[in-house]
Amino acid sequence: MRIAMAQLNPTIGALEKNLRNVITHYQEGLEKKADLVVFSELALTGYPPRDLLNYKGFLDKERALIEDELIPLTAQSGVPIIIGANHRQNNRLYNAALFLEKGTIKSIHLKTLLPYFDVFDETRYYTSSPGGQVEMLGNLPVAITICEDIWNDMSYFNNPLYDTNPLEKLSAQGPRLIINLSASPYHYGKHTLREDMLPFLAQKYDSAILYLNQVGANDELVFDGSSLVYNNRGELLYRGPVDREELFLVETADLFTPAELTVSPDRDSIETVKTILEMGTRDYFAKTGFKKAVLGLSGGIDSAVVAALAANALGPENVLGIIMPSPYSSRHSKEDALELAKNLGIKSRVISINEPFNTFIKLLNDQKNPVMDLAEENLQARLRGLILMQISNREGHLALVTGNKSELAVGYSTLYGDMAGGLAILSDVRKMMVYELAHHINKLHGKAVIPESIIQKAPSAELRPDQKDEDSLPPYKFLDPILELYLEKNYSPSEIIAEGHDEETVKRVIKMVDTAEYKRRQAAIGLRISPYSFGAGRRAPVARGFEHY
Amino acid sequence: MRIAMAQLNPTIGALEKNLRNVITHYQEGLEKKADLVVFSELALTGYPPRDLLNYKGFLDKERALIEDELIPLTAQSGVPIIIGANHRQNNRLYNAALFLEKGTIKSIHLKTLLPYFDVFDETRYYTSSPGGQVEMLGNLPVAITICEDIWNDMSYFNNPLYDTNPLEKLSAQGPRLIINLSASPYHYGKHTLREDMLPFLAQKYDSAILYLNQVGANDELVFDGSSLVYNNRGELLYRGPVDREELFLVETADLFTPAELTVSPDRDSIETVKTILEMGTRDYFAKTGFKKAVLGLSGGIDSAVVAALAANALGPENVLGIIMPSPYSSRHSKEDALELAKNLGIKSRVISINEPFNTFIKLLNDQKNPVMDLAEENLQARLRGLILMQISNREGHLALVTGNKSELAVGYSTLYGDMAGGLAILSDVRKMMVYELAHHINKLHGKAVIPESIIQKAPSAELRPDQKDEDSLPPYKFLDPILELYLEKNYSPSEIIAEGHDEETVKRVIKMVDTAEYKRRQAAIGLRISPYSFGAGRRAPVARGFEHY
Repeated sequence: MRIAMAQLNPTIGALEKNLRNVITHYQEGLEKKADLVVFSELALTGYPPRDLLNYKGFLDKERALIEDELIPLTAQSGVPIIIGANHRQNNRLYNAALFLEKGTIKSIHLKTLLPYFDVFDETRYYTSSPGGQVEMLGNLPVAITICEDIWNDMSYFNNPLYDTNPLEKLSAQGPRLIINLSASPYHYGKHTLREDMLPFLAQKYDSAILYLNQVGANDELVFDGSSLVYNNRGELLYRGPVDREELFLVETADLFTPAELTVSPDRDSIETVKTILEMGTRDYFAKTGFKKAVLGLSGGIDSAVVAALAANALGPENVLGIIMPSPYSSRHSKEDALELAKNLGIKSRVISINEPFNTFIKLLNDQKNPVMDLAEENLQARLRGLILMQISNREGHLALVTGNKSELAVGYSTLYGDMAGGLAILSDVRKMMVYELAHHINKLHGKAVIPESIIQKAPSAELRPDQKDEDSLPPYKFLDPILELYLEKNYSPSEIIAEGHDEETVKRVIKMVDTAEYKRRQAAIGLRISPYSFGAGRRAPVARGFEHY
Repeated sequence: MRIAMAQLNPTIGALEKNLRNVITHYQEGLEKKADLVVFSELALTGYPPRDLLNYKGFLDKERALIEDELIPLTAQSGVPIIIGANHRQNNRLYNAALFLEKGTIKSIHLKTLLPYFDVFDETRYYTSSPGGQVEMLGNLPVAITICEDIWNDMSYFNNPLYDTNPLEKLSAQGPRLIINLSASPYHYGKHTLREDMLPFLAQKYDSAILYLNQVGANDELVFDGSSLVYNNRGELLYRGPVDREELFLVETADLFTPAELTVSPDRDSIETVKTILEMGTRDYFAKTGFKKAVLGLSGGIDSAVVAALAANALGPENVLGIIMPSPYSSRHSKEDALELAKNLGIKSRVISINEPFNTFIKLLNDQKNPVMDLAEENLQARLRGLILMQISNREGHLALVTGNKSELAVGYSTLYGDMAGGLAILSDVRKMMVYELAHHINKLHGKAVIPESIIQKAPSAELRPDQKDEDSLPPYKFLDPILELYLEKNYSPSEIIAEGHDEETVKRVIKMVDTAEYKRRQAAIGLRISPYSFGAGRRAPVARGFEHY
C-alpha cells in the first residue's frame, strides 16, 4: 500500500483557499498512485483557528466544503482521505481526524489530550474525547491520532501533563501503524525532542509511525514541517523539509523491514533558527498581503540581522532601510549602515531626525534646549518610529521592529519608538543569539555582509553622548542566562540565585522584567523560537505586586 | 452563629500586602464577635494571578504565609477562617478553599469547574477536582464552593458548559448553606444574571447562600463586589457595595426565617457602568503607582467622557488635558475643550501641532506641502501621541487613551497616535453608550459639565477639512448593533444579515473588524464592561483569510 502524506501551509480561516490546496495535493497523490492521502490537523481552517471557532457559520462552511467537495472525490477515485477537521457532536466541538472513503465519512477519530499551556488554548474550544478505535487499512491496523494524543507516554516523560495516555489505550487493540496529524510550532529543542520520543514509541509499541506536521507561519507561530517516517524498529526513513510544502509517499512494506538507509537525526542548530525566522517573515508578509518591508538601520547589530533576514526572506529589492541619524549618533553608525545596505543589496535612505528633534525641543522644553532626560531619549526613538510609519503608510511597506528579546524583556526599548511596527523578527531571540545569527549569516555568505565593525562595536542605543547598553543593563552574557531561567524555565528568583548568579543582578533583572510588562502588552507580533516567548503564550499581569519569592 | 464575610480588593502578586489586608479584616471580624471569617477566591494572590502560578517560589510563599501567619491566628482566637488559596497535591495544582481552624487546616475544598472561556484560563494552571464533601459548621451542614462550581445548574442553563454539576453532587449530602468564594469580573448583564440564578439555587436546594465576590480592578478586569446573601427561600437579605471593600456580618439564624426586609434586585444600569469604569481607572493607577493622568482633549465626546470619568476617579487636580489643535481642527473644538476643562476643574494646556506638522511635511514630502493622504492624517494623530508621551515620560503622568470600542473595532484609529497610552477607559464602550455616559454624567452634575456643543456635534476625527466619521463609517446607530452581534454574541455574518441588517453594511463592517486586528494587537489595556472585549479574552488571528460565511 502506498500512502501519500501532504505537509501543507494553510492560512488561518481561508477555508476555500486551503481546500483548493488540499485538492491539488490529493490529485497529485492520485497521479502518483497513492492508495490513501493524509492531511494534517485542522487542515482546512489552519492551526490555530482560535476564536474563529466561536462562529457557527465558520464551522458550517468548513463542514460543507468537506461534504460538498472532498467527500465526492473519494467516491470518484476510490482513494480515501484522512484529514484533520472540526467535528460537532451532541452540542460539543471536537478536534477530529475524518476518514473519508467511497463518498462517506467512514470513521471519525477525536482528540483526547487538549493542550492548554503556553500558546495552546484547545480547552477553550474543544471537548476531550474518552478515546477511539483502531482503524483497518486493508489488513493493517492503524491508530489514527491527533498531535498531543501521542505526547503523554508515562514511561518517557518524568512528569506527564495529563492523567491519561490515549496511545496506550489504542495500543491494546494492536495497531501496527501510528498516523499522527499534527500542527506543532517550532521552538528550539523541539526537533531533538521529537526525534528522541517518536522512535521510543515505535519501539515500545512495535509500530511504524507517520508523523505529519503543518508547515509555515501563522502570526507568531512558525510550524516547522519536518514530518517524520519511522519503521517499527524506530529507524528514521524520511524527514520532510522545514520550510516548504511537500507531498511524500510511503510504501507500507518499507515500514516493517529493517531500513537500508536511515536519515540521521536532526539537532537544533542556528541554521534552523535562521530558516524559521525567514519563513515566519515570508509568511507574515504573504498572509497579510504585504510585499515590501521598511526598517530603521541604526548601524547596530539587531537592525543589521533583521535586514539580512528580511532580505533573504522577501528579496533584497523589497527591503528598504532608513538611516536616521541624530546629534547623538556615533561617527560610524551611518557609514556602517550604508555599507550593510550595499552588501545586502537593499535600498536605503538617510533622513536625519535633527530638525524634528529641534522643533519638539522648542515646543516642549521651557528653556528651548535639550535637557538630556529620558523623555528626550524616547523622543528620538519616537521620531524615528514616526518616520518609519509615515513611509509605511504612504508607500505600503510593512514596518519591521528590530529589537531583540533581551531588551524587550528588561524594557530597554521605547513604546511607539523602536517598538513601532507590524512584525518583530527578533523579539524572541536573545542578544547573544543575535550575535550567533550574525556570525552564521556572514559564514553562509562567505564574507562579512554584516560588517565586522557592526558586530564588534559595544551595543548602544545612541540616544545620548557615548551611551552604552551596559550603562543601564548587566552585560548580555550575564543577562541572557538569567532571562532564560526566569522566562523559559520558570525558575523563581531564589532558584536562579541558587544556580550561582549574582543576587543583586538577579533581583535587578527580574524587577526590570516584571515592570516592563506594560510595554510588551503593546508590542508587535514577534516570531516565536523559544519555549516561552512574549506572545500569545504569555499571560502576565501588568498592575501587580513586585515582591520577592 | 455569626459569619463575617470580607469583600476585599487584592493586588495581583502582592502576597504580603494582601495578607496584611486579610489579617486586618480578620481582626475586625474578631472585634465584631464573628464565629467565622470568610475570604474570597485566591485571596492572597489576587485573581487572576495568571502565569505567576508557573513559579514554584510564588506558590511556596503563598503557602508559607498561610502556615506561618494565618493558621496561628486561628489557634490564638479560636475563630476559624475560610479562604481561597492555591493548593498542590500529587504534583497537581488546585484552586482551593482552605478551612483553617484551631491552628490547622481542617479541610480543603477543591474547585471542579475550571472556566476556560473569554478572559478565563484556569485549565492552563489547575487540575479539576472530582468533587468534595459538605463541611459541618457546628451543626449546620455547609457546601463550601468556589466560583464556577455553582454555575452549571442543568435545569437553569439551557446549554450548560460542563458535563458535571458539583453543587448537585454536594447537595446529596444535604447542605443547608452554600458558601461561594468568587472572583467574578463585571460585564453588563451579569448583575441581572447573578440575582436571577442565585435565588433559583437557594429555592431548588432549600439552602441559604453566601456569595462572596472580589472587588476592585486588576488590569482590564473589574471585579464588582456586590456580594450577596440569600436566605433558604431565595430572598435577598444583603448586597455588598460595587466599588469598595467591606466586612459584613451574617447571623445564620436569619438565613432560615422569612425575611422581614428584602433588598430589591439590581438591574444593570449606566450608573453601574460609570462606577465600574471609575473604579477600573482608580485601581489601575493605584496598582501601577501612578497618581496623575494626561490625555488629549479634542473637543469631541470621547475625550470629554474620559476626562470626566478620570476627574471623578483620580480627582480633577490629578488630570491634565492637552489641547492640540491642527490646521484642520474645527473652530469650536478648542473652545469646547477649554470649557470642558474648566467645568471639570482639571488642568489644561494648549500645544499646537502646526509646527511639528510642517517640519515633517518638509522632511518627508517631495513637494514640501501637505498632500492630504491617509499618512498625513496618521501623522497628525501620531504627533499628538508623541506630545502626550513626552509629557507622560517627563512629568510622570500616565497617558489615557480616549478611543471607544466602535472605532477600535473597525480600526478607525491610529496606532502610536490616538491609540498611544497606558489605559483605555472606553475601549470596551461602544459609541452609543459613550453618549449615554455623557448624558448621565451631566444629569448627575445637574448641569452640562460636558458642554452640549460637544454632545451635539457630528463625530469627527478632524484630520482633514470638514471630515466626519460618517464619511468613512456607517452611522453609529447602525454600526453598534452589528458590532454587538458579531463580537459579543458570536453571530456569523449571515446570521447578522438574517436579523435584518443591511447586507452591504454588514459585510463592510465585518471586513473592517477583521482587518483591524493588527491594530488591536498593540492596543492599550482597556477596561472590560462587555461580555467580550478586545482584551485578554480575545484570541483572534491577524494574518488570516477574509472569506465570508
